[in-house]
Amino acid sequence: MSLLSVTPAEGVKITEDDLAVVAAKFGYEFKGDEKAEYTTLLAATCNAMQFVSEMDGQFSNPRLLHDPDQDRLPARAGLRLSATREHVRLPRSKRGLAKIPSYFPEKSDNPDNAWAHRFTLAHKSPATTLLQGKTVCIKDNICVAGVPCLIGTDTFTGWVPKMDATIVSRILDAGGIIRGKAVCENLSTGAASYTAATGPVNNPYAKGYSAGGSSSGTANLVAKGEVDLGIGADQGGSIRIPASLCGLVGFKATFGLVPYTGCVSNEATIDFVGPITKNCLDNALLLEAIAGVDGLDDRQSAGTPFRRQVPKYSQLLLETQETGVKGMRIGILKESLISKILDPGIDSKFRAAAKVFEELGAVVEEVSIPIHEIAPALFGAASRQGGVMGRTGKASGRRQVMLTDLYEKTLPCTAATIEKMSPVSKNTVFSGEFCWERFPHVYAKAVNLCRKLSEEYDAALQRYDVLIMPTTITPADPLPAENDSVIVKMSKTIGKLDNTCPFNATGHPALAFPIGFVPAKADKNIRVPASMQIVGKHFDEITCLKVAYAWENARNWQEF
Amino acid sequence: MSLLSVTPAEGVKITEDDLAVVAAKFGYEFKGDEKAEYTTLLAATCNAMQFVSEMDGQFSNPRLLHDPDQDRLPARAGLRLSATREHVRLPRSKRGLAKIPSYFPEKSDNPDNAWAHRFTLAHKSPATTLLQGKTVCIKDNICVAGVPCLIGTDTFTGWVPKMDATIVSRILDAGGIIRGKAVCENLSTGAASYTAATGPVNNPYAKGYSAGGSSSGTANLVAKGEVDLGIGADQGGSIRIPASLCGLVGFKATFGLVPYTGCVSNEATIDFVGPITKNCLDNALLLEAIAGVDGLDDRQSAGTPFRRQVPKYSQLLLETQETGVKGMRIGILKESLISKILDPGIDSKFRAAAKVFEELGAVVEEVSIPIHEIAPALFGAASRQGGVMGRTGKASGRRQVMLTDLYEKTLPCTAATIEKMSPVSKNTVFSGEFCWERFPHVYAKAVNLCRKLSEEYDAALQRYDVLIMPTTITPADPLPAENDSVIVKMSKTIGKLDNTCPFNATGHPALAFPIGFVPAKADKNIRVPASMQIVGKHFDEITCLKVAYAWENARNWQEF
Repeated sequence: MSLLSVTPAEGVKITEDDLAVVAAKFGYEFKGDEKAEYTTLLAATCNAMQFVSEMDGQFSNPRLLHDPDQDRLPARAGLRLSATREHVRLPRSKRGLAKIPSYFPEKSDNPDNAWAHRFTLAHKSPATTLLQGKTVCIKDNICVAGVPCLIGTDTFTGWVPKMDATIVSRILDAGGIIRGKAVCENLSTGAASYTAATGPVNNPYAKGYSAGGSSSGTANLVAKGEVDLGIGADQGGSIRIPASLCGLVGFKATFGLVPYTGCVSNEATIDFVGPITKNCLDNALLLEAIAGVDGLDDRQSAGTPFRRQVPKYSQLLLETQETGVKGMRIGILKESLISKILDPGIDSKFRAAAKVFEELGAVVEEVSIPIHEIAPALFGAASRQGGVMGRTGKASGRRQVMLTDLYEKTLPCTAATIEKMSPVSKNTVFSGEFCWERFPHVYAKAVNLCRKLSEEYDAALQRYDVLIMPTTITPADPLPAENDSVIVKMSKTIGKLDNTCPFNATGHPALAFPIGFVPAKADKNIRVPASMQIVGKHFDEITCLKVAYAWENARNWQEF
Repeated sequence: MSLLSVTPAEGVKITEDDLAVVAAKFGYEFKGDEKAEYTTLLAATCNAMQFVSEMDGQFSNPRLLHDPDQDRLPARAGLRLSATREHVRLPRSKRGLAKIPSYFPEKSDNPDNAWAHRFTLAHKSPATTLLQGKTVCIKDNICVAGVPCLIGTDTFTGWVPKMDATIVSRILDAGGIIRGKAVCENLSTGAASYTAATGPVNNPYAKGYSAGGSSSGTANLVAKGEVDLGIGADQGGSIRIPASLCGLVGFKATFGLVPYTGCVSNEATIDFVGPITKNCLDNALLLEAIAGVDGLDDRQSAGTPFRRQVPKYSQLLLETQETGVKGMRIGILKESLISKILDPGIDSKFRAAAKVFEELGAVVEEVSIPIHEIAPALFGAASRQGGVMGRTGKASGRRQVMLTDLYEKTLPCTAATIEKMSPVSKNTVFSGEFCWERFPHVYAKAVNLCRKLSEEYDAALQRYDVLIMPTTITPADPLPAENDSVIVKMSKTIGKLDNTCPFNATGHPALAFPIGFVPAKADKNIRVPASMQIVGKHFDEITCLKVAYAWENARNWQEF
């Protein structure tokens, strides 16, 4: 169930006047059919909100976020609590103000609109050789000091961050060579690659098709081999959806494992950054380089490993290569496959791919977690209301590094700003604002219900090492035309978030990896990638990686 | 510098019409002189906001929250990372719904208006004997399942929480006997004890004088010996101010050490709960019983000890009793003593008390931390804007247990609700709302500047084991009359938060303990307690306790 697909329920009547009140707060004036279209979207949102508001969200039986057995997991063995200060080593002048020659590439050098800015940045004497010689692109909602940051939008111009994100420092410290910033969708929101102000990003396997989003540029560049490794960010699926649509390995690790410091936030509880790569070993390497407490990001809760405690993912993968998934218990999430819009090609490709694990010695069973079906509504209720706070600069209540220079560019949120937003963001603002008025109690309820959701997956993960499902239940769609209606444009994300966004809400690690090609819906002769998502226990990244790595070693996905 | 004391700066002009716009959002209509009075308060707030807005809040040189040497501290030695699930054992029926016979006491049994509700609650077979036989009162912004919770307000009625706060479960698990809920100030906000809807709380040493706030009832009851131990909550000084005014030991531990789950939040980044007791050993015992990760409160960041890692504070205190403060370096915070409103009696009492440490073998020196003088403005900017989000139910962006049943009572925030708020809360709503519009960039800036503030104290704490200062720089004031003006009522908190609120912003542990009596300002024949505040390194609670314990063993505060 996606927010868009819910049909209005009895008692929820939304008129254009309702919408007008919200818009009036910003002095915004609708043009053409916009008013009717956004009213339709608002009605759908309100229906989902109403649905949640009728549930029992009372919290009376608390359970804990982290798994009780996690310190028995091999990857955590031998860890010790340490709280030493990590000296965040800025590789350039100590205040990060060194100028980097960077440029926006010519159209001829950027045929898929995937690069946001080109430059080369490397550490003269890196601390480790983990990423030695590997080239990397960084999603353009992440700060690299001295390089313009666009966040896919033209609602403002000229933002040049003065700090490096923690992960940027860490990549350089590990010997990585940063080749530039990769385009992200408008304000880092949107699961289809048509919303960036610099133009639509092409699917690397099908020109004119979506590369997914919002880490669209990163996926395009890694898939084409323009860089070895890519960094994405994910607030509902934005690492995994582009990975799914572009035939890549994308990993949204456990909430807090990778510090979000220096990355543009949408809503703090669903913010993730992580690796998008061609294969599992590269993914493990990059994750290892960037994971661990930085002492700045308060998303990193008690139990998050400090730097020296971060498992050696790549080494562990190699060491257990022989064993693979032998003896593991893998659960196929039943409710991930029951949607009416599940693409038949993806359905059969996924089931065939799951069978490979049986051949490799795992027990593969179907497991039912009924709440999964309504997870997108729970995610939507919490993230929509939290999201508008972020959009309008009113997100509060966290101890983290605030990007004050960005706020100088974006606040106050005026009619002119909204004017230039993508339909996705406009909808977030209108509906988010409206819902705070109409459904003031739902946010708190949704937060608690997301914890309930987490507990339901946790219960299944007591019986299974991992859960598996299709990453996206529909394949890449053709990009919309510029003059398509808002409704048509919004429809390009249908089937993309259903299986990804629940794990933003719960914080479980979720890895997407490619399992073959399927025919596109619009044209059966076009073949686009299909993907499997592996969900593991909190902080059990290594098991997710091992499962994907075993499959990768057993099959060539491009020929599966 | 308090928010109230700032004189309007050039360029900041606030009219009654400005205020009217904010009020109109809620449909609120002013009565009598209210409009002019709240305009004056708003102007003062805006001046402080303007002050912060002119500072450089750009964050370009990140440092870490926790102290690099903390795993060398004795209290942390031998700690190991564990992430096991704590089974939150509800001592009653598993859903916490068991009925407890509880009642609001007759006036004759409650002469100081300090009890909110009376009942007796104890565990039949507690897990430990830590608090065996000790009686406890709980501040009335903390959930005890089945017992009405008033939060000092009559803006709503009939809220009976269905869950126990984590600390309530832990007190019962440790053998404590809970005797009831203690009155807290209106909506748990306010540093003077005249705002609770159930009536003003008296100072235990001076009838008709303030007991401080917002944990006024707790302090009154502990001081009078009606219970052995008390629990307070602190969002700017609300544990330490009542402790200061009532001759008690009040401890606001490091941010996150004590889980806030099940306590009513004002603004998540400044929320603390902790012990208010007659002496240091009791304080150490109670802290030990309630501290450590609960897996539910995301204020508990990486580095917060899990339950089994919590130091045995009480045992450590006894073991090091002989050594005391010998060889310690104690810094008198110079800027805590330069305010024009510093009471001469408190000044001299504090300086005499500090000398005791020299006699006990410590090095006592003055240390200057200039930013301390503007700390209340930084705290105010962040907490005012965050605070109105909490008040109006729009606090977002955290993974924690939300008190959904409370939101059902309090939302939406209407004119009728505001009507019944205390002046402090009304001012929070009016000015908070207005500031988001007028100063949209300041919140982010203030958050970063609070980190800067934290770093400045950290730097001094590299050279000193603890910093000391008067807890409140003015003694207890007479309670206002009911028909006093808003301005007069608000003036009752002057000098109370200046030295306490900075450490809500930074999260450092801060302990208040009594050092003698001083004459009241209004009547020299009335003698009220004076207090010293000890501030330590993050998670170095034991050193704060040791320092206070050494003083307590050397002198009888009532005769000092």
